[in-house]
Amino acid sequence: MERQGMIVIDALELSNWDRDFLYLLKKGGVTCVHACCGLWENARETLSKIGSWHRFLKENDDLVMQVFQGEDILRAKETGKIGVIIGAQNTSALEDELSLVSVFNQLGVKVMQLTYNNQNLVGSSCYEENDSGLSRYGKKVVREMNRVGMVVDLSHVGNQTTLDAIAASTRPVAITHANPDWIYPSKRNKSKEVLRALKENDGVLGVCAYPHLVNGKETTLDEFCDMIVQTVDFMGIDRVGLGTDLTLNMSVDFLHWMRMGRWTHEMDYGAGSKENPSWPEWPEWFQTPADFPNISKGLAKKGMTAEEVEKVMGGNWLRFFTDSFKSEKEAMKCTYPL
Amino acid sequence: MERQGMIVIDALELSNWDRDFLYLLKKGGVTCVHACCGLWENARETLSKIGSWHRFLKENDDLVMQVFQGEDILRAKETGKIGVIIGAQNTSALEDELSLVSVFNQLGVKVMQLTYNNQNLVGSSCYEENDSGLSRYGKKVVREMNRVGMVVDLSHVGNQTTLDAIAASTRPVAITHANPDWIYPSKRNKSKEVLRALKENDGVLGVCAYPHLVNGKETTLDEFCDMIVQTVDFMGIDRVGLGTDLTLNMSVDFLHWMRMGRWTHEMDYGAGSKENPSWPEWPEWFQTPADFPNISKGLAKKGMTAEEVEKVMGGNWLRFFTDSFKSEKEAMKCTYPL
Repeated sequence: MERQGMIVIDALELSNWDRDFLYLLKKGGVTCVHACCGLWENARETLSKIGSWHRFLKENDDLVMQVFQGEDILRAKETGKIGVIIGAQNTSALEDELSLVSVFNQLGVKVMQLTYNNQNLVGSSCYEENDSGLSRYGKKVVREMNRVGMVVDLSHVGNQTTLDAIAASTRPVAITHANPDWIYPSKRNKSKEVLRALKENDGVLGVCAYPHLVNGKETTLDEFCDMIVQTVDFMGIDRVGLGTDLTLNMSVDFLHWMRMGRWTHEMDYGAGSKENPSWPEWPEWFQTPADFPNISKGLAKKGMTAEEVEKVMGGNWLRFFTDSFKSEKEAMKCTYPL
Repeated sequence: MERQGMIVIDALELSNWDRDFLYLLKKGGVTCVHACCGLWENARETLSKIGSWHRFLKENDDLVMQVFQGEDILRAKETGKIGVIIGAQNTSALEDELSLVSVFNQLGVKVMQLTYNNQNLVGSSCYEENDSGLSRYGKKVVREMNRVGMVVDLSHVGNQTTLDAIAASTRPVAITHANPDWIYPSKRNKSKEVLRALKENDGVLGVCAYPHLVNGKETTLDEFCDMIVQTVDFMGIDRVGLGTDLTLNMSVDFLHWMRMGRWTHEMDYGAGSKENPSWPEWPEWFQTPADFPNISKGLAKKGMTAEEVEKVMGGNWLRFFTDSFKSEKEAMKCTYPL
């Protein structure tokens, strides 16, 4: 178990939420998770996903609560519940309608990734051959997200769209789940140019344990923690958190939906490959959320102070989400006490 | 202008909301209006309607605010803004999905009429030849509305479905806009049996000035107030409020949508008739919301005490909405101080 005081936040998980999963999170000392509730879903489909979350939250309200504001993360910690931030890995739920930003924000969709793996109305993804940057609509969407206090997530987003979005945003943005591409080369990981821009924007990067974004299941805890230390060296200790992208107990049907949506009839492997077509196997030191303490121990072993470990394990996301979930108006009134 | 202390609540208006309309409400001393944001709309279409309300609320936030809880009505009064309760005159937005009750409740849709003018998945309307009562799904919907704190509105609902819904509801329900049918005979008005059941349920009836539900534009203020007095005599002073159903500056296109939705290609006149196919003309004493003081003066002239007038003009709805907008869990903790 993590020590009492530490707040642990995972800035992305795509796992199958049931009571057993909640117990694993509790066992791992996890305070709060950003849970993905949309990949390719349109507005109507996203309503159904949110409806399912309402049911899950109601039926498990002894163990879990929805997070709308930073204060809710602290309340989750106090009451020993898992705080869930609902987010979407796409802006597909907005369709072409700017007003739906505030509507989904009101439903507690507090994070939206501008694109999933394809170009959309807002911009382009890291897998597109060409990325013409943030679209006219995309600029409006970023500004509206800034206004209402919905986090702009750039994890799967293409290079140019990412840089444009950082430039267009009047508030810090997030890359909830990606790694430096000079450590682990992948289209899904991020260049020095992007991470430098993120740093200057006061954003936060969630380093990712998804096997295809590191060195597969063979990646050792020492290597993973070494990447974190190098990323902190580049970004600064206040700019790095975790976004494991854990995908526990997900079905193959869901994997196909994740990879192909409705946009293709051929298998698209994303960060996977033909030789490795199924859900990836995870390293032995991160099989379930109960393994979070391995990471904090690994960081301490690398020479991080307790304070530094706490920032990476959750403190940075707590500060970032507390500020970012406020509407622009509220944010002008008060800031998270540093 | 109404005197400072009086809270005036109109439990249904279907008018064209713009700044001029807000000024008229202010001039009439109106504190809060339940505004109709759906007639035949499905879930997706209702999202767009809510999105438009967000835009209207944002662009006019010096004059108007959305009401989610009874306390917001008091805050509207204090700050001199018009409080808007968003509601729908149908459960069409829920489609066949029980989870959407809490989703739309979270979006501040705090009132839903079980049916508009046709039978739907939940029950039957006052215009259907046969009304087989609250459906299996309807019973689930009523209980879920009770749970989350969304008001069950029975105004256009058929007789049997209305009685079933009152029996099924564990909390008081509303008839936001209808009159006693023994005073003004109309399929849309309500029988003694229904109003007795509403009274026993501790619900509230909003008496309605819609010309087709009284005696047309010729209805005098004295006659309208006389109906209110008779209704109070039957229901008790705590069970009667206003629900004018005002339809100011609405287009003929909207009238056709209201009457025909997508369900018919023939004109359906609802409470109107072939001889009277357009929007009805309103009595001279209620041309715009600036005329609300005529009603309070008329009631005083009928011999009502100041306290009684205040209850009918808004006090009863304030108490009812304050209690009813709480979730079942919150309602168990505290009740509106009577």
